[in-house]
Amino acid sequence: MNGGSATARRRVVAWDDPAGLAERAREMAGLDFLRAMVDGELAAPPVAQLLGMRIVEVEWGVVTFTLTPCESHYNPIGMVHGGVTATLLDSAMGCAVHSELPAGVGYTTLELNAHYLRPILAETGPVRCRARVVHRGGTVATAEGRAWREADDELLAHATTTCLILRDGNGNGRQATASSRSEREGSDAAARAS
Amino acid sequence: MNGGSATARRRVVAWDDPAGLAERAREMAGLDFLRAMVDGELAAPPVAQLLGMRIVEVEWGVVTFTLTPCESHYNPIGMVHGGVTATLLDSAMGCAVHSELPAGVGYTTLELNAHYLRPILAETGPVRCRARVVHRGGTVATAEGRAWREADDELLAHATTTCLILRDGNGNGRQATASSRSEREGSDAAARAS
Amino acid sequence: MNGGSATARRRVVAWDDPAGLAERAREMAGLDFLRAMVDGELAAPPVAQLLGMRIVEVEWGVVTFTLTPCESHYNPIGMVHGGVTATLLDSAMGCAVHSELPAGVGYTTLELNAHYLRPILAETGPVRCRARVVHRGGTVATAEGRAWREADDELLAHATTTCLILRDGNGNGRQATASSRSEREGSDAAARAS
Amino acid sequence: MNGGSATARRRVVAWDDPAGLAERAREMAGLDFLRAMVDGELAAPPVAQLLGMRIVEVEWGVVTFTLTPCESHYNPIGMVHGGVTATLLDSAMGCAVHSELPAGVGYTTLELNAHYLRPILAETGPVRCRARVVHRGGTVATAEGRAWREADDELLAHATTTCLILRDGNGNGRQATASSRSEREGSDAAARAS
Repeated sequence: MNGGSATARRRVVAWDDPAGLAERAREMAGLDFLRAMVDGELAAPPVAQLLGMRIVEVEWGVVTFTLTPCESHYNPIGMVHGGVTATLLDSAMGCAVHSELPAGVGYTTLELNAHYLRPILAETGPVRCRARVVHRGGTVATAEGRAWREADDELLAHATTTCLILRDGNGNGRQATASSRSEREGSDAAARAS
Repeated sequence: MNGGSATARRRVVAWDDPAGLAERAREMAGLDFLRAMVDGELAAPPVAQLLGMRIVEVEWGVVTFTLTPCESHYNPIGMVHGGVTATLLDSAMGCAVHSELPAGVGYTTLELNAHYLRPILAETGPVRCRARVVHRGGTVATAEGRAWREADDELLAHATTTCLILRDGNGNGRQATASSRSEREGSDAAARAS
Repeated sequence: MNGGSATARRRVVAWDDPAGLAERAREMAGLDFLRAMVDGELAAPPVAQLLGMRIVEVEWGVVTFTLTPCESHYNPIGMVHGGVTATLLDSAMGCAVHSELPAGVGYTTLELNAHYLRPILAETGPVRCRARVVHRGGTVATAEGRAWREADDELLAHATTTCLILRDGNGNGRQATASSRSEREGSDAAARAS
Repeated sequence: MNGGSATARRRVVAWDDPAGLAERAREMAGLDFLRAMVDGELAAPPVAQLLGMRIVEVEWGVVTFTLTPCESHYNPIGMVHGGVTATLLDSAMGCAVHSELPAGVGYTTLELNAHYLRPILAETGPVRCRARVVHRGGTVATAEGRAWREADDELLAHATTTCLILRDGNGNGRQATASSRSEREGSDAAARAS
C-alpha cells in the first residue's frame, strides 16, 4: 500500500459477548430491553460499539439513536459510507418495532429502503436518527426513520423498513427465521447464477 | 455494564488517510482506480478496514466483494446487523457504477433497497457479493447486487440502488452533491418535525 | 373543463366477475391457474382488461406479461404514468411467486420497489415484462422483474418485490391477511396523523 | 373464456387529449397547474379518468388524492391490484414535488417504494392519499405518501419516492429525460438478458 505508513490511523474496538445480550432480548419485553440499554444496564451490541452508534431514547414505537461520523466510516470517495447511514437508520427502525413486542416475540428485517439526501463527513458532527413504527400487525410491521445533523437540523437521509414478526414460542427470531425459510429453496441457485 | 469484564473482546482497527484515496478516485478512471485497489496498489478505504470487507474482482460494470462475518458485526438480537450486509451490497453496487465512469466524473448514491433472506452469523463463514450495473444513462445509473454464502452458494440477501452521476468538471462528487442540493431546502425543517 | 369537447376520447372497458376467478385461484395450484389464464381458459382479471395488460408465458418461477402503452395511461406531464409500469412489474413478479405455490396457499405483496429508466409513450409500442422468483422460503418470497421495449430490447424499468406467503388452510390470502394484521393497530392512527 | 357472458361488466372510459395538458404543465408553475386541476379548470389526466382517481387538495409541497376502489381494479386473487394503489401513491407524491417547481422546470420519477399494509376491496370505500415533499434540492427530490380508508382512518399503504428535477430551459421533462439518458447504454442489453 502506497503512503500507508505516514498516514496510518488506528482505533481499538472493544465489545461484549453478544450471546448474553441476545438471550436478554428473548427474555424481556422489547421496551424494557431497550430501556435497559439506554440506561447502560445492558451493554451496547457489538456493531454499535464498532461504529460508535448509541441508542439515546426509547418510547413505545419511537426510538432515537446518535452517531458521530468519523474517518473510519469513510468510503473510497471520501465521505461516510452509505451503509453506515443505513445501519443507523435500520437500527432505529428495528428497535422501534422491537419496542412494541412482548417478551418471547422476535422480529427480523425483510427489507430496507434508504434515501440519501446529503453527504455526511466527519465535519458534519453528531447525527441524530429518530424512527417510529408506521404499522404493526400480527405478522408484519413497517417503520420509518430520519437522520439529521444535530447542529442545524438539516435532514441527511430517510428510510423505511418492513419487518417480519416471529412468534415461535420461545421468541428466538434467529432460529425461527432460519428454519421457516429453509423449506424449499430450489429457486435460489438459479437466481444467484443469473 | 453487567458482566462486561469477563466477556469483553477487543480488536485493533487501522486505516489510511482517506483524503489521498479520494483524490485518486477523482483523478483516475473508475475501472483503473478499482483495479488498483484489487491489486493492493491503493489502500482499502477506512470502512472496508473497519468491517473487514474486501474488493476482489472488477470488470466493466461488475464488481465482487467478500466479507467474513464476525461477532463485532452483531446486533442486539445476536446476528450480523442488516446494516453491515447493506454496506457490503452498497459497496459492490456503487463500485460497479464507478467502474464505468471516466476520470473526472463522480457519483453519489441516491437510494438503496435491500432484501434480507436469511440471518448471517459468524458461523456462516465468508460471504461473497457480486453487483452489476443494470442501467447507466447520462445522469442516473441503477445497479443490482446479490450476497451469498461461499460455502454452499446459499443466497443471503439482494439489493438494488439508484446513483446520480456527477459531471461537475473536476469530478468532485462530494462538492457537487453538497452544492447542487443546497439551493432551496425550505421543506426540510417541516419534514423532519413531522 | 376547457377544450374537452373537441378532443375527448372514449374506450369501452369490459371485464368478468372477479369472484369466480379468485375462487379458482384458491382451488388450483398456481402454475395450473396461470397457465389456464395464458391459454384463455380463464378470463384475464379486471385490472388487466382495464389497462390492456396480458400474461403471455408461465413457467415455474418465471412469468412474462405484455402491455401496449396508450394515451389512456398518460399522466399530466404527457407520458405513461409510472403506476401503470409498476402495475405491469408487480403483476409479473406476483405471478412468478404464485406459480410456485400449491393449491390452497395464497400470497400477498408486502413491498414493491420500482426503478424507472426511460419514459414510456404510446409511440414506444409494446412493452414486455419478465419476472422471476429470487428467493422463496416458507413465509416470505422475493422476486425481480424487468420491462423493455419489444421493438429494440431497450430496458425501460426494473423492480423487486417482497411477498408474504399465506398458509391458512383454505388459501384465502385476502381473509388471512385482513385478520392476521388486525390484531393490534394502535400505532396507525398516530402514524397517519403525522 | 368460461362463464364470461353471464358475468361480463362494462364501463365507458373517456378522457381528453393529453398533449394540451402536458403543454400547460410546462408553461405554468406547478402549484398553479395543480390548483387549476383541483378547480376543474384543467381536465384530469387520462390515467386519473381511467382509474377514477382525483386530486382534491394542493398546497406547497403537500397534495391529496382520492380513489374509490371498484371491481375493475381487481387482480386475479380478488382484491385491488397493488399497482393501482402504487399509482395513487405515486400520483400524490409526484404532484407534491411538482407543486414546488417553477414554470419551465420538470421532473421525472426515478424510483418508487411502496408498502402494502391491508388488502383494498370495493367494500373498503373511498381511499384518501396524502403526500408531502421530504427533501427538495436542485437536482433531486424525495417525497412520502400515505393512503388510508376514509371511513375510519385505517392506514392501508405508504410509500416514498425519488424524483429527478429537470432544468433543460424549456421544462420539457420528457425530452430531457430521453436525451440525458441515451448517451451510452451499453450495459442494458447484457442486463436484460441476464
